Amino acid sequence: MPNISSKAIQMPQSPIRKLVPFAEQAYAQGKTVFHLNIGQPDIKTPEQAIAAVRVADLTVIEYSHSAGFPIYREKLAAYYRKNNINIANEDIIVTTGGSEALIFGFMSTCDPGDEIIIPEPFYANYNGFAVMAGLTVVPVTATIDDGFALPPIEEIEKKISSKTKAIVICNPGNPTGYLYSKEELERLRDIVKENDLYLFADEVYREFCYDGAVPYSVMNLEGVENNVIMIDSVSKRYSMCGARIGALISRNKEVMSAALKFAQARLSPPTIAQFASQGALDTPQSYFDEVVEEYVERRNIMVEGLNQIPGVFCPMPKGAFYCVAKFPVDSTEKFCQWLLEEFDYEGATVMMAPASGFYATPGKGVQEARIAYVLNKESLIKAIKCLEEALKVYPGRITE
Amino acid sequence: MPNISSKAIQMPQSPIRKLVPFAEQAYAQGKTVFHLNIGQPDIKTPEQAIAAVRVADLTVIEYSHSAGFPIYREKLAAYYRKNNINIANEDIIVTTGGSEALIFGFMSTCDPGDEIIIPEPFYANYNGFAVMAGLTVVPVTATIDDGFALPPIEEIEKKISSKTKAIVICNPGNPTGYLYSKEELERLRDIVKENDLYLFADEVYREFCYDGAVPYSVMNLEGVENNVIMIDSVSKRYSMCGARIGALISRNKEVMSAALKFAQARLSPPTIAQFASQGALDTPQSYFDEVVEEYVERRNIMVEGLNQIPGVFCPMPKGAFYCVAKFPVDSTEKFCQWLLEEFDYEGATVMMAPASGFYATPGKGVQEARIAYVLNKESLIKAIKCLEEALKVYPGRITE
Repeated sequence: MPNISSKAIQMPQSPIRKLVPFAEQAYAQGKTVFHLNIGQPDIKTPEQAIAAVRVADLTVIEYSHSAGFPIYREKLAAYYRKNNINIANEDIIVTTGGSEALIFGFMSTCDPGDEIIIPEPFYANYNGFAVMAGLTVVPVTATIDDGFALPPIEEIEKKISSKTKAIVICNPGNPTGYLYSKEELERLRDIVKENDLYLFADEVYREFCYDGAVPYSVMNLEGVENNVIMIDSVSKRYSMCGARIGALISRNKEVMSAALKFAQARLSPPTIAQFASQGALDTPQSYFDEVVEEYVERRNIMVEGLNQIPGVFCPMPKGAFYCVAKFPVDSTEKFCQWLLEEFDYEGATVMMAPASGFYATPGKGVQEARIAYVLNKESLIKAIKCLEEALKVYPGRITE
Repeated sequence: MPNISSKAIQMPQSPIRKLVPFAEQAYAQGKTVFHLNIGQPDIKTPEQAIAAVRVADLTVIEYSHSAGFPIYREKLAAYYRKNNINIANEDIIVTTGGSEALIFGFMSTCDPGDEIIIPEPFYANYNGFAVMAGLTVVPVTATIDDGFALPPIEEIEKKISSKTKAIVICNPGNPTGYLYSKEELERLRDIVKENDLYLFADEVYREFCYDGAVPYSVMNLEGVENNVIMIDSVSKRYSMCGARIGALISRNKEVMSAALKFAQARLSPPTIAQFASQGALDTPQSYFDEVVEEYVERRNIMVEGLNQIPGVFCPMPKGAFYCVAKFPVDSTEKFCQWLLEEFDYEGATVMMAPASGFYATPGKGVQEARIAYVLNKESLIKAIKCLEEALKVYPGRITE
């Protein structure tokens, strides 16, 4: 039997996957499980997206252009302009989710053995895309104490080697919910300019900014037009994760022409989902206003609720729909497993994502967990109650 | 400005892309262009697929399981059983087109620097997937004189080195339309078994076999259950290329568990298109009977028509909807460009894919072109007439 590849061995497993068997066991025991572990919102997909699929001409479900339907790219460019991001149609390649945009972006710019610097904690699947492209992730640690702000520039500069090819950020961030300020992004601009690096920014949570905060896109950083690559996706914006429509966006013509060759090899992004995504662009502002209002309420319930539990600390995020909280426990990996395996409060328990999987530095985030506040408020309140009760009896509880 | 990657530079351009500007010029001149260059059939997508999309619950377009919706995999396994391919649900990972199945397959089994042997001419995008995985394609040349049958075993064995990890075939074949016999496949089985290699078989044209020929799947080769990886797709079967739903299929549990990690990193294959693909599995046999009858007529018109043109030779393929023909010209790259740029017959011309792009050996296939008979019969007859007239006046015509 031939061997599997070394990449296959290196490919990490998501921090949540390990818990899945324990969740299944909890279901089998008849427990209610509050899923705070996933980024699949319960928000309805806009009716404009669904209507576009219902009326689409599907007589022959044909390939689109490898960069996406021209008319969709045109409408997408208009959407960005409305968001003060001034880009042309040809700066956009429509991809199969943000995932494919990252894979094409990494493969177009970085050679195997190159290093990419990512502030940790970061979206765990970046590890997988790095393995696929043969890259080494070099983390620079952000801390919960200052709400996961951008680490000091000196810390980032220390990580730059002759192999460094890019810095990768997610803004607003998964898993932290942290929204980088214009000043923080300008500091990154200075670093990438000085060191001739690419700056990848995953901006898929753009619409989810709270308390009047306005997201600042890397596309608006001046003087680094050829360094900046933006990753986008309809998944979260329109609560249509299953569509698998994303975009790779850059003004660097050489990068775009390279990425197009990767796009051509796989022929076309999904076409029915492009119809849905095009329709989604007609979603009225009122939809987002309602969604944001809902998420703000959920966030407030969640974060305030967490901070009221003795020993728990959770900074207040300004974006996305995640937060990372610190628990008074030996290890959130153990705690999260125990919650599913051993615990229930009135027949219910909670599933969270242990944060260690979002750090590349071993030993970091051991007491932290990511919480996605994608459930309705009533469920969130019950979930917090579960956590509070659980921490009273968890055997690995640490008291300071 | 940072450099693009060496992979980006290595990524080949499809042999057709170079002709696109000349096709656009031909349109601008008001010419009718008969597109014999593409694999996008004009056949209607089965109504069962479209109906499934129309009625699907799209309230929240959610992720599916990373390996695809369980119910779709179950129905897919039943489809294979009906086709005498006995596989279990867990032997299937649903992918974003056959393209992603190949990428996951290569990345799960081969290390950068490894070699894969492919009989040439072969589907040009295999080159792109090989570049993405860092693999070297080692061609073994099939010839038009025997209709592109499997090259002699000795020729294949000569190509095996310590770096060889897999043999890749497409059966029935794009671009040749050649259908490997059971005996040819058993010869491949013996080689992969003896040398401990993987055998990838792209079987997406399974339904398109003619003259009573029955395709033999690599999944039915005995004694190589852990070596064989099948690639499949709904694109051609149901004329729904834009769905982007494929499958990676193997009984090798280690490979499947590796491939699942790659699948998990990109979260989910497209869900709306999975609904369409699931619906498509209810397509009645009469649909395929009609399609096959149509393709047989088209093939006969095309191949017989080509062979009646003085100096042209085209073997009669038994499958898919392509053929490779040899033309009495200096170079089909030049000829195909000239057809678009300089020629018309009664206001019409023809676009074909020069075959050199389907060979990895430099200098091979210079006089050959791939023809996709995906147009209606009337257009095919006109296209043949165009070619006949063109060869009378083409300046690079070679007379033997």
